[in-house]
Amino acid sequence: MSDLATEVRGGIYPQSEYLAQLAAVIRAQDSYGTWDGKTDADLLADYIVTAEERRDMPIIADPEPEVLDRIEKFYDAIGLLLEKRSGIMAAQMSRISHEGFGRVVLIAGRLVVISKHLRDVHRFGFTSFEKLAEAGEKLTAEAAAMIAAHPDAARA
Amino acid sequence: MSDLATEVRGGIYPQSEYLAQLAAVIRAQDSYGTWDGKTDADLLADYIVTAEERRDMPIIADPEPEVLDRIEKFYDAIGLLLEKRSGIMAAQMSRISHEGFGRVVLIAGRLVVISKHLRDVHRFGFTSFEKLAEAGEKLTAEAAAMIAAHPDAARA
Repeated sequence: MSDLATEVRGGIYPQSEYLAQLAAVIRAQDSYGTWDGKTDADLLADYIVTAEERRDMPIIADPEPEVLDRIEKFYDAIGLLLEKRSGIMAAQMSRISHEGFGRVVLIAGRLVVISKHLRDVHRFGFTSFEKLAEAGEKLTAEAAAMIAAHPDAARA
Repeated sequence: MSDLATEVRGGIYPQSEYLAQLAAVIRAQDSYGTWDGKTDADLLADYIVTAEERRDMPIIADPEPEVLDRIEKFYDAIGLLLEKRSGIMAAQMSRISHEGFGRVVLIAGRLVVISKHLRDVHRFGFTSFEKLAEAGEKLTAEAAAMIAAHPDAARA
């Protein structure tokens, strides 16, 4: 990592279709344009959890509504990017207990294109914008591969 | 319907693999055997909502935890019966808002074998045990047909 990355929280903000999509998901809620002056990096700042921040978080804690919302948007953005790339719509469904365990699925037609079991939900985050972008791109690629493997179920 | 059915709440209790499975799901929670003296019909009584009872229910109301639990068990029983018949495990995932709208899916491997959008969740119920049995059998058959149509996704 560059010196800049160690200095600025979240590090370098990379070019990423996934990050652009995730920021768009967040901006979609901003009906009155109050965030127009904010950069995408500002809007995604809550997705960053640095090593220090993580250390300071309790190992067990009830996930707050903001965290659940953040996780949902993370997967919503994957669904939307997937739709742009494959033309197939996918909707997410998540279920997270107040102990912070849960499952998130992304469903296209009758196909589960992503299935993730989550834990330590209250600590959900990425050490850098690059890691966030990588995670989103990787899951989108996995979902696309799942559709390619089972196209009939995805279109059912 | 027979006279008996109009007299007894829930009507005749039919022979049904589905009802037996649903009662077994409920009994599985009875660790201390306090319900050993109860019949399956006793245990499933809460699934009955007669026309009169339905009329007396508010059109809009927050679904109580008991109702959500009842709906989950309804789909759990379908998953278990499906497994007995097809050898394929299916897990349910439900998400119901406190306005009483929601979605329930039953997932086998990567295949969504059942997908239901729910509304008026607080009024969830059946006018008779026969209708309850029919609904459970019908959904189990639909799920089995979905597996037959997309066996690769169901085993993925």
